[in-house]
Amino acid sequence: MLSFESDYIQGAHPEILKRMTETNLDPHPGYGTDDICASARKKIREACGCPEADVSFLVGGTQANSTVISALLAGYEGVISAETGHIGTHEAGAVEATGHKVLCLPEHDGKISADELAAYLDGFYADGTHEHMVIPGMVYVSHPTEYGSLYSLAELEAVASVCRARGLSLFLDGARLGYGLMSRETDVTLPDIARLCDAFYIGGTKVGALFGEAVVFPKGQPKHFMTTTKQHGALLAKGWLLGLQFDTLFTDGLYFRIAAHAIDMAEKMKKIFSDCGIPFYRHSPTNQQFVVLSTETARKLAASVAFTPWGPHGSDAVIARFVTSWATTDEDLDRLSELLSW
Amino acid sequence: MLSFESDYIQGAHPEILKRMTETNLDPHPGYGTDDICASARKKIREACGCPEADVSFLVGGTQANSTVISALLAGYEGVISAETGHIGTHEAGAVEATGHKVLCLPEHDGKISADELAAYLDGFYADGTHEHMVIPGMVYVSHPTEYGSLYSLAELEAVASVCRARGLSLFLDGARLGYGLMSRETDVTLPDIARLCDAFYIGGTKVGALFGEAVVFPKGQPKHFMTTTKQHGALLAKGWLLGLQFDTLFTDGLYFRIAAHAIDMAEKMKKIFSDCGIPFYRHSPTNQQFVVLSTETARKLAASVAFTPWGPHGSDAVIARFVTSWATTDEDLDRLSELLSW
Amino acid sequence: MLSFESDYIQGAHPEILKRMTETNLDPHPGYGTDDICASARKKIREACGCPEADVSFLVGGTQANSTVISALLAGYEGVISAETGHIGTHEAGAVEATGHKVLCLPEHDGKISADELAAYLDGFYADGTHEHMVIPGMVYVSHPTEYGSLYSLAELEAVASVCRARGLSLFLDGARLGYGLMSRETDVTLPDIARLCDAFYIGGTKVGALFGEAVVFPKGQPKHFMTTTKQHGALLAKGWLLGLQFDTLFTDGLYFRIAAHAIDMAEKMKKIFSDCGIPFYRHSPTNQQFVVLSTETARKLAASVAFTPWGPHGSDAVIARFVTSWATTDEDLDRLSELLSW
Amino acid sequence: MLSFESDYIQGAHPEILKRMTETNLDPHPGYGTDDICASARKKIREACGCPEADVSFLVGGTQANSTVISALLAGYEGVISAETGHIGTHEAGAVEATGHKVLCLPEHDGKISADELAAYLDGFYADGTHEHMVIPGMVYVSHPTEYGSLYSLAELEAVASVCRARGLSLFLDGARLGYGLMSRETDVTLPDIARLCDAFYIGGTKVGALFGEAVVFPKGQPKHFMTTTKQHGALLAKGWLLGLQFDTLFTDGLYFRIAAHAIDMAEKMKKIFSDCGIPFYRHSPTNQQFVVLSTETARKLAASVAFTPWGPHGSDAVIARFVTSWATTDEDLDRLSELLSW
Repeated sequence: MLSFESDYIQGAHPEILKRMTETNLDPHPGYGTDDICASARKKIREACGCPEADVSFLVGGTQANSTVISALLAGYEGVISAETGHIGTHEAGAVEATGHKVLCLPEHDGKISADELAAYLDGFYADGTHEHMVIPGMVYVSHPTEYGSLYSLAELEAVASVCRARGLSLFLDGARLGYGLMSRETDVTLPDIARLCDAFYIGGTKVGALFGEAVVFPKGQPKHFMTTTKQHGALLAKGWLLGLQFDTLFTDGLYFRIAAHAIDMAEKMKKIFSDCGIPFYRHSPTNQQFVVLSTETARKLAASVAFTPWGPHGSDAVIARFVTSWATTDEDLDRLSELLSW
Repeated sequence: MLSFESDYIQGAHPEILKRMTETNLDPHPGYGTDDICASARKKIREACGCPEADVSFLVGGTQANSTVISALLAGYEGVISAETGHIGTHEAGAVEATGHKVLCLPEHDGKISADELAAYLDGFYADGTHEHMVIPGMVYVSHPTEYGSLYSLAELEAVASVCRARGLSLFLDGARLGYGLMSRETDVTLPDIARLCDAFYIGGTKVGALFGEAVVFPKGQPKHFMTTTKQHGALLAKGWLLGLQFDTLFTDGLYFRIAAHAIDMAEKMKKIFSDCGIPFYRHSPTNQQFVVLSTETARKLAASVAFTPWGPHGSDAVIARFVTSWATTDEDLDRLSELLSW
Repeated sequence: MLSFESDYIQGAHPEILKRMTETNLDPHPGYGTDDICASARKKIREACGCPEADVSFLVGGTQANSTVISALLAGYEGVISAETGHIGTHEAGAVEATGHKVLCLPEHDGKISADELAAYLDGFYADGTHEHMVIPGMVYVSHPTEYGSLYSLAELEAVASVCRARGLSLFLDGARLGYGLMSRETDVTLPDIARLCDAFYIGGTKVGALFGEAVVFPKGQPKHFMTTTKQHGALLAKGWLLGLQFDTLFTDGLYFRIAAHAIDMAEKMKKIFSDCGIPFYRHSPTNQQFVVLSTETARKLAASVAFTPWGPHGSDAVIARFVTSWATTDEDLDRLSELLSW
Repeated sequence: MLSFESDYIQGAHPEILKRMTETNLDPHPGYGTDDICASARKKIREACGCPEADVSFLVGGTQANSTVISALLAGYEGVISAETGHIGTHEAGAVEATGHKVLCLPEHDGKISADELAAYLDGFYADGTHEHMVIPGMVYVSHPTEYGSLYSLAELEAVASVCRARGLSLFLDGARLGYGLMSRETDVTLPDIARLCDAFYIGGTKVGALFGEAVVFPKGQPKHFMTTTKQHGALLAKGWLLGLQFDTLFTDGLYFRIAAHAIDMAEKMKKIFSDCGIPFYRHSPTNQQFVVLSTETARKLAASVAFTPWGPHGSDAVIARFVTSWATTDEDLDRLSELLSW
């Protein structure tokens, strides 16, 4: 069945499986101490313009989020997030399970505003009882956000500037980072992110890898981060499998090329929806598109194409998410177009 | 370089990579809700002789241990383990990170004794202050153990019987389960384990999979175990990758055949060591072999073959671990034999 | 200096100190296993009309909240609270430190609405991704609330009914329970609370005790609750000190009499504010009163009387909290009246 | 009934209750921000010879231990303790509940040896797999120990020296510190402890206070320690009650005088046991005495005097703990003597 359900419905870019197969029986030391991981780290540092960065490879996003957040926070600290942030909604309380509160700010198109962040921090420290409250220690942003939106460079710099001035660290969840970097509407580059954040990850699972997220600490990783990773059950025994994937993705710009393809497919998809008169729920410059379908259309469509229901919209319509990826083809979109022409 | 460093130095059985490649672009629903996972679960239930079992697929061992243990324990409970148990030594405090104490019993060849377990529990409840102490809620055993040894059926039944009588659950860490089941010295079968344990896992990472552990709850899984798994960062987005591996391993007995091969290789390796007059540190009927090497031999050997140093042995010798796996070849052992004949 | 800063600015009702002094050198067994605790438990059970209740004595409110909440929740569950609930605001993340998320509902006068609770739960289970979210396991209400307001019996029954229908437990934070029970505007009795809640506590610290909260489990306490209490550092060695205080408070209705006195004082205080034309920020039928003071008045007043600033109100006024207690005297209020007549 | 069950069977030194009664209705700000706490902190700093120390007042020992330990450890670190240490045995897993492992060293009379500590740390860092293990971050010692024994100054300096050289912090549990400082066999002073430790507490609960432990950080407390304390449910609302007790105890040397009295009583008790031919289980220079009683004697004695059974001793005898305190009288001992003369 045709599926736009998410960007993690298929395996990996064929180059990755090919290389995995070719090197399958070569022995490697475990836990990311091998040469392929070293090579992948080097290429990522170069892509980030950040020679002193530490890079670790973890398996998935929730794991990366809770491991990094708990590694960077003191026990009395919490992490600030937009109310729609993945860590506060769809990670089953993984951050709280490590003992930390997620402190919510209002979302604007899935993003937090630097001004509201500053106002929150001003208010917090002005409150005479703040020693009885969770101390804000970090800001979490997702880029692209859960709604496919993007911080502009000015917005990200403003958030980073507030963080720096108040001593908070800034962590960017880049589960779909490739799609953000290759959006036609962004002015944010990978070196910008490395310059502005204390930690971020380059998503692989949703951008061409079988699985894997490359966690980058531009200014160096927290002490004993490998032990912390192990403690969180996040240290893959066959670590070279992660290195191999990122080494492949960061050779000859593969990561960026396949992300750009997904953006092309998303733009084509947007045109199809527009042409059919299907309204957008939110504007998204990346690979996740949110449209409003009449209940009837949604029902009919669901018989032939998989998408994600995103909640009701008024009494007779629903919000639906359609996602492209590195693996979406022109044929997939042609079929979608046909289905919508019914 | 020749390597007997561990059983997770190479990728996956070629059948797995082949199938992964063939199905690479097929879309699947996420998080283990797909048909391949369903098929793998069915095959595992059959192999366990346990039609009502719940089966979940997790990525790695530490992750499986801390997720299952915390899912089964109440907040005031701890888990009993041999002092050499992996959870108490080489998992960076993953169990404690979920709030639970590992309660140690003496090890006998890496195993706990049912009698000592019973005596410990008797003593605990006889102690008038026991409400001030961590309540024992579960017994953890590894099979094979960290020393390659195995519980006999009688031993495992005795431990299970103590657990049942006192209301403790029994959890078996089967990271290397295949090698235990195919040992020439075991009388324990997979249905025995399913009959005796409340939870256990069938290790894939070390037995032919790229990665993955099949967690089995013979009597049904704890409520909301999927949410617990997500909370622990242990829910793989592309869950079918795990299902595919176990479905392959449990088709036509592949899991057992490749484990039996590793045992054949281990027996051959034992003979090589014996023939060279190299003494064993402990007797092991599985794929991990522990020998005593003079410092000189260890140094020379290390230039040509990778193995794991396991600590000093007296003043001029070391304990060394050599491990075979599904991927070990006769040629590997011939080369080892040559090297030792120097 | 005159102080209406809170209801925990003074020691204990003199009867308590008198009895503490009289029995000071009598030996007692520790940890609440003594006869005085037994007597206090009996009296509390009677006052609750609940002969099968378990009663434990803890030292303070945050401690009681995090101990009870974590004892009643499964690892994957969170606790629902009004956004103004003490556990989510002024307990420094104590609940999250035990691994659980506080799930916020809108506050209405400091209370949650049963309808909104039901709608939240409906929406939660209707969401196809809910297994990726924190499962709601308990509802927390404070009574009186942080704003001095009270649930009516109908409101509390409605909340309890939703909880019962969905399998959530209901926990009532009664840090100021006495003042709620003796309010002139309440129809909720202690037996009502015992009938409707799975757990609640009768606040002592703010209602005549030196310190102490009596945690009541009307249907029996969770297994090994003493061990859980110890684990949370909440088991007082000299437990009889807590029993003695509650035994005194629940002898001849002392708890209710002193709470009624505080309510009389609050009503007198309300009249003083009204007579001076000082507006109320919120209506409160209990011992906490919230008024709006011009910045000028607040500044002048602060020189002679202690109260709690509760944040700004517009550009030239502040919200101020004034609290009466069991220890407030007519003279205190006469002085306040004089100060306000300036 | 005559009781030597523990040193927390009675209330407080009468001076404390007198002062509590006298100041009962004086208003104070909460949470330890009052003048009496300030005065008590000053006196404790002076007694420690440590003008820059931070002093916090917590309610009980388990609470103090878990709060301080988790405040000083990084997430990946554990705390080293003698296998008989209170944190590892009788605190219901309070340290593990904060996510940290207790790493056990052998006990020698309840103490750890600096040489064994150094050897453990050497071995740890020499182990190539140590990044997979809990990193030792702190040493916990109790003084007096759970067996009443004491570190000599040389022993404590040796332990502190190992800690300093390896970057571990040193924490001393002084639940019975007064009795240790006034022992006739000690050369350790309070300023010695303040000089050698990173944190310690001066026990009040067992040495004349109603309740309370004064936590001292000689080199300054961890950032936001008040918030950490609140998060652990360990911040007493009426903090001045703790300050008042320690201010009284540290006025005119009361703490030391009453501890010296308990030591006098213990020496007298030892003579009584000796004179009756009752053997000691261990030598103790402090207020806890461990003797071996025949089962028959123990049974007869238990009818008239409370003591703590400490486990069996051979087949027909038991170990029994008898404890003196600030409140023990000559009459108590005369009665014990009579009972033993039966």
